[in-house]
Amino acid sequence: MAPRTVTTQHRVRYGDTDQMGVVYYANYLYYFEIGRAEWLRAHGRSYRDVEAAGVLLPVIEAHARYRSPARYDDLLDITVTPGEVRAASVRFTYELRRADEHTVLAEGWTTHACMNPEGRPYRWPREIATLLRGE
Amino acid sequence: MAPRTVTTQHRVRYGDTDQMGVVYYANYLYYFEIGRAEWLRAHGRSYRDVEAAGVLLPVIEAHARYRSPARYDDLLDITVTPGEVRAASVRFTYELRRADEHTVLAEGWTTHACMNPEGRPYRWPREIATLLRGE
Amino acid sequence: MAPRTVTTQHRVRYGDTDQMGVVYYANYLYYFEIGRAEWLRAHGRSYRDVEAAGVLLPVIEAHARYRSPARYDDLLDITVTPGEVRAASVRFTYELRRADEHTVLAEGWTTHACMNPEGRPYRWPREIATLLRGE
Amino acid sequence: MAPRTVTTQHRVRYGDTDQMGVVYYANYLYYFEIGRAEWLRAHGRSYRDVEAAGVLLPVIEAHARYRSPARYDDLLDITVTPGEVRAASVRFTYELRRADEHTVLAEGWTTHACMNPEGRPYRWPREIATLLRGE
Repeated sequence: MAPRTVTTQHRVRYGDTDQMGVVYYANYLYYFEIGRAEWLRAHGRSYRDVEAAGVLLPVIEAHARYRSPARYDDLLDITVTPGEVRAASVRFTYELRRADEHTVLAEGWTTHACMNPEGRPYRWPREIATLLRGE
Repeated sequence: MAPRTVTTQHRVRYGDTDQMGVVYYANYLYYFEIGRAEWLRAHGRSYRDVEAAGVLLPVIEAHARYRSPARYDDLLDITVTPGEVRAASVRFTYELRRADEHTVLAEGWTTHACMNPEGRPYRWPREIATLLRGE
Repeated sequence: MAPRTVTTQHRVRYGDTDQMGVVYYANYLYYFEIGRAEWLRAHGRSYRDVEAAGVLLPVIEAHARYRSPARYDDLLDITVTPGEVRAASVRFTYELRRADEHTVLAEGWTTHACMNPEGRPYRWPREIATLLRGE
Repeated sequence: MAPRTVTTQHRVRYGDTDQMGVVYYANYLYYFEIGRAEWLRAHGRSYRDVEAAGVLLPVIEAHARYRSPARYDDLLDITVTPGEVRAASVRFTYELRRADEHTVLAEGWTTHACMNPEGRPYRWPREIATLLRGE
């Protein structure tokens, strides 16, 4: 089984920066998304297939703490760990570092509801709950 | 009837800039989109309603020429004029200026197919063709 | 003097949505940015001028809670109120609603450091502290 | 020496799609940027270093033709070839395909000026001209 924490590399694009010369704060949420997609893939599922099977995981809460700026062309390690799996929600936590460095540039978490395509809350399909709980 | 050319004002956001201190080139295509949505609205239609009625206008070609950079907090005039309406496509042309200035910062055009929601080419509904042709 | 809470209208662009048919979660941070820029403008300052005067306000923490999705072409009311002004940081809080509706679609806050252009913490220039504190 | 044409893989993010269920048209320009950054890297240079050495290559013209939509989670091959190197400009051409497929989803080109950090046109540093010309 894949490890509980999965790290994905991603390179900062020019268009992700702003005139302060660093990554614009909203773009870290894109990096979080990349990390959690790869967490699922490392565990044998793609979020595309999860959606195709009728399970949507919209973000209902997001938090980011920006410690030190990421810059253009930085190769980032995006580290993702799922947290608490509740009846109809799950939390993922994130840490971003430059590849092979220890300093955390940014960290945060997102909470996702489990919904059906009509937008109604949904109990976790057993398989996905098992995956997220690491059982 | 609304004039053939419609101008919309839009303010450049911080997140639209890049580390060169100017608007990142892809973001002009967002400005073009804002302009053509407001062109339709000025003519009594919203693109939201057009889509809800089953007519999709995906972009099949786009062109932009960047003459002078737009900067953070600039208030832009986005000027839009529809061009040629063909059997199953239409072109919009765009000019961007700072509000109340004559210099064109950027200009371009987009060509749109007319499709149904299944992605098949579609002849223009008469009402929309009439609107775009200014008849 | 401008009121403590300032509301700005902003229309959702097509490019802000994702394939779930709603606004992608990172884009709310752009909406927050629009709101706080207009808060400053309503109080007689632009963030562009603040930066030009050597005061940078980078985001060091951001939080968003997504209650009900904003959709393409929605005209949003972005309501902004500054909170606590500390020695070298300030918090802004945000609420998003559809224009003329009461339901909060999303809410959140951002915390900003006060920095000089070399990236070192900076005590608030008196004028800006006064502005933010509403004194 | 690296080949004249360089292909980079990139995966489509959820936030790159729009409510039509496909990649929003402006995002292809980000993909073009990724491709040309990796072209430079494959030839031993990073655009970050080029800028640090005082040579800016802002886009002055961009063109994209959208043939078939890219979708969420598609792994794209971004193929880049530099074209004509003129006195103070260079063109790059792009083709996007799904990895291991032949169909071109989108193609386009960008023209870049060669500028110094003060925004004045600049003749190519010999080393970069040589690189781009493949001499």
